[in-house]
Amino acid sequence: MNNYDVIVIGGSAAGIPAAITARRHYPDKSIMLIRKEGKVPIPCGIPYIFGTVGSTDKNLIPDAVFSNNDIELLIDEVQSIERKAKSVVTAGGERISYDKLVLSTGAEPLQLPIKGIDKENVFYAKKDVSYLDDLLHKLDNVRNVVVIGGGFIGVEFADELNKRGPNVTIIEMLPRCLMLAFDEDLCIEAEEKLKSRGINIVTNNRVEEILGNEIVTGVRLADGKELMADIVFVGVGVIPNIALAEKADLEVNHGGIVVDSNMKTTDDNIFACGDCVDKKSFFTGKQSGLRLASIATTEARIVGANLFEQRRKSQGVTGVFSTAIGDLVLATAGLTNKQAQDNGFNVTYGEAEAPDRHPGGMPGMSKMKVSLIFNKGTGELIGGQVRGGTCAGELINTISACINNRMTADDIAMFQIGTHPAVTASPIAYQLVNAAEMALTKQ
Amino acid sequence: MNNYDVIVIGGSAAGIPAAITARRHYPDKSIMLIRKEGKVPIPCGIPYIFGTVGSTDKNLIPDAVFSNNDIELLIDEVQSIERKAKSVVTAGGERISYDKLVLSTGAEPLQLPIKGIDKENVFYAKKDVSYLDDLLHKLDNVRNVVVIGGGFIGVEFADELNKRGPNVTIIEMLPRCLMLAFDEDLCIEAEEKLKSRGINIVTNNRVEEILGNEIVTGVRLADGKELMADIVFVGVGVIPNIALAEKADLEVNHGGIVVDSNMKTTDDNIFACGDCVDKKSFFTGKQSGLRLASIATTEARIVGANLFEQRRKSQGVTGVFSTAIGDLVLATAGLTNKQAQDNGFNVTYGEAEAPDRHPGGMPGMSKMKVSLIFNKGTGELIGGQVRGGTCAGELINTISACINNRMTADDIAMFQIGTHPAVTASPIAYQLVNAAEMALTKQ
Repeated sequence: MNNYDVIVIGGSAAGIPAAITARRHYPDKSIMLIRKEGKVPIPCGIPYIFGTVGSTDKNLIPDAVFSNNDIELLIDEVQSIERKAKSVVTAGGERISYDKLVLSTGAEPLQLPIKGIDKENVFYAKKDVSYLDDLLHKLDNVRNVVVIGGGFIGVEFADELNKRGPNVTIIEMLPRCLMLAFDEDLCIEAEEKLKSRGINIVTNNRVEEILGNEIVTGVRLADGKELMADIVFVGVGVIPNIALAEKADLEVNHGGIVVDSNMKTTDDNIFACGDCVDKKSFFTGKQSGLRLASIATTEARIVGANLFEQRRKSQGVTGVFSTAIGDLVLATAGLTNKQAQDNGFNVTYGEAEAPDRHPGGMPGMSKMKVSLIFNKGTGELIGGQVRGGTCAGELINTISACINNRMTADDIAMFQIGTHPAVTASPIAYQLVNAAEMALTKQ
Repeated sequence: MNNYDVIVIGGSAAGIPAAITARRHYPDKSIMLIRKEGKVPIPCGIPYIFGTVGSTDKNLIPDAVFSNNDIELLIDEVQSIERKAKSVVTAGGERISYDKLVLSTGAEPLQLPIKGIDKENVFYAKKDVSYLDDLLHKLDNVRNVVVIGGGFIGVEFADELNKRGPNVTIIEMLPRCLMLAFDEDLCIEAEEKLKSRGINIVTNNRVEEILGNEIVTGVRLADGKELMADIVFVGVGVIPNIALAEKADLEVNHGGIVVDSNMKTTDDNIFACGDCVDKKSFFTGKQSGLRLASIATTEARIVGANLFEQRRKSQGVTGVFSTAIGDLVLATAGLTNKQAQDNGFNVTYGEAEAPDRHPGGMPGMSKMKVSLIFNKGTGELIGGQVRGGTCAGELINTISACINNRMTADDIAMFQIGTHPAVTASPIAYQLVNAAEMALTKQ
């Protein structure tokens, strides 16, 4: 029987950094990663296969990461964990023992319980290359696509599918697209941008039935209206893959595998990270539904470092991400204003907008807007949103650093920033600092 | 006699945010800003007047900032401060009394004590519109320009002047350009980029004499070599404008006006901020020679808030800035590796490079490199550098937030970042996090 110091199950945004981090911190340990897929798509890049990038082959996580980090790769499916024997048994008939085991089994797209959902040409954002290739090929002869769900997966798919020519309609049950990530002003801007790019948006509505015989021909909405559709894409969330953990009698709940702040499961030798894991909010300590590749990698870096020595603790998830619609970038960190209020926080709010170059005539200028949400009780930053050009994607990480360090508006207003005419706002107009000042002084 | 609650002297990167911050925090106070210039150029934008932007008029700080913030603007020169009477006397014959006074008198370009420095067509980065217009007009008929100083001012001027056609040569006395801001690998990349754009670089050398009769015709270097020059641009640093403070018998030293951590001078009713102020390093507590518009604005925000209530304290200067040479952006925060070692820090160092898109085939990709320098004793981040595309200018501010919060490599490795295919590296490859991991584990 083969034997490894560390076995990682799963080879995407959690499994890979868990294995790499284990390698970095424990250079003498033997590490195997077992995944069932021959090729693994870059998860966040999946929407871009269909427009910008153009093929699944150009959106793969390169396997060089394994040889470069002295990690053994086994392509096989783990069918059970024998906790007493500390070994795993695979579909290929292997029994391999471990000292420490990492579960990063991910999540599957959520299926909607609606009539006709099983028809041919209903697609999801599955991390499966041949499945995605099938969707890619089918798009060549398609006139109408309906996207169910106006969250960031739905919005990104809609924008990319639209580039291939079909008529695309988003159906969102909330009053606005992207409402779980952004406050209403930015949701409106996103919707306007999508519409200007030819995408139809139907909000406050839901798909009640997928129409057609075996193959999709359309959808019927809650208000009775019918839309033609050759393809329906469903992007309404994910459910954690917990079957293996459940079978091994590890504690799980509907949010995923239960872990402590060291990312350890109820078995001392088994850790878990990524979409398969139950999460707690950094702000409230309550269960969080956030599932992001960036959260998976953060958790994986805690797991990888903690395997043989207690080194890191999870602080809970803050939720930091960006999305792009053409040249419009929207980014968010922590709680929205609405979420903060729904969770009982008394908040103060400030926003500032300025050109992201100075003078504004410098090339490539976008108007960048930052809004910040502070907990009035503690004074601490609990949320921030950015709307602007490309660099909104890095600016949100500055905001995330401020949140993680529980900075107050005064801290942020005094925080030393660097600026340059060709790449940022002026130091006088710098949006992050001015949004903090506005939160302090506008009342 | 006129009377204001607050008088601010100086209308650039320190004076303006000092007045705005005072307005925000003290809405009922009367505020006057006195400056001697009719028009004020955006200081960091001055090099770009000569190439990218093309005119001084397109690089002005808009005076709307005063009316928008209910700040009285007086264009006049303060000649003396009567501390007992709490009033200022101007060249225009005004005597205006204050409750609180803010000195933001800035700095002047340093003149080199070399033979011939007073000849016509020796220029500096003066914040003076008609002076800059004069340089702009003269550039139309120029074949050779020598830039003395390969710091960021010299490099930016060289790159912009080069766009107007003349043959441009930088003379730097250190072994590399930009050596006070970056470690050698990035200095080499900067020099290679400058050379590829047609700029000549002479290092380890200095100008000993400016040649010509009344008008510059060339320079003679320390090694005896002579270079032709129709214009010489000198960018070798600044000296603080302290004459007014000195005359008023406030404590000053060769670094500038002496202030406490509240940014208060030796007079309880007089504050000072910006280039005119003596500075201390965030890292060592020792005097710092850093002079940046972004530091000026940070200090101004401390002054503005502290005028009538002790609210903020200066932590000393970290030094955060970016520069751009075409599509190459270099950014730095805190100490370089060399500076850290020169200051007696025992350091660990980590770096990581990755495409700033994922997959790398996404449009607009640059290779972004982050290096981080940690104090081995405390584990805290004390410096970081970024080389990459446009968004290096925001990423350096995330690094600055990490420095300001004294984050360790473990803190940064667990820090929740947001990523997106169109705007950042992948979460697995995210450079900041991986540089922290490398610093922890490569030893």
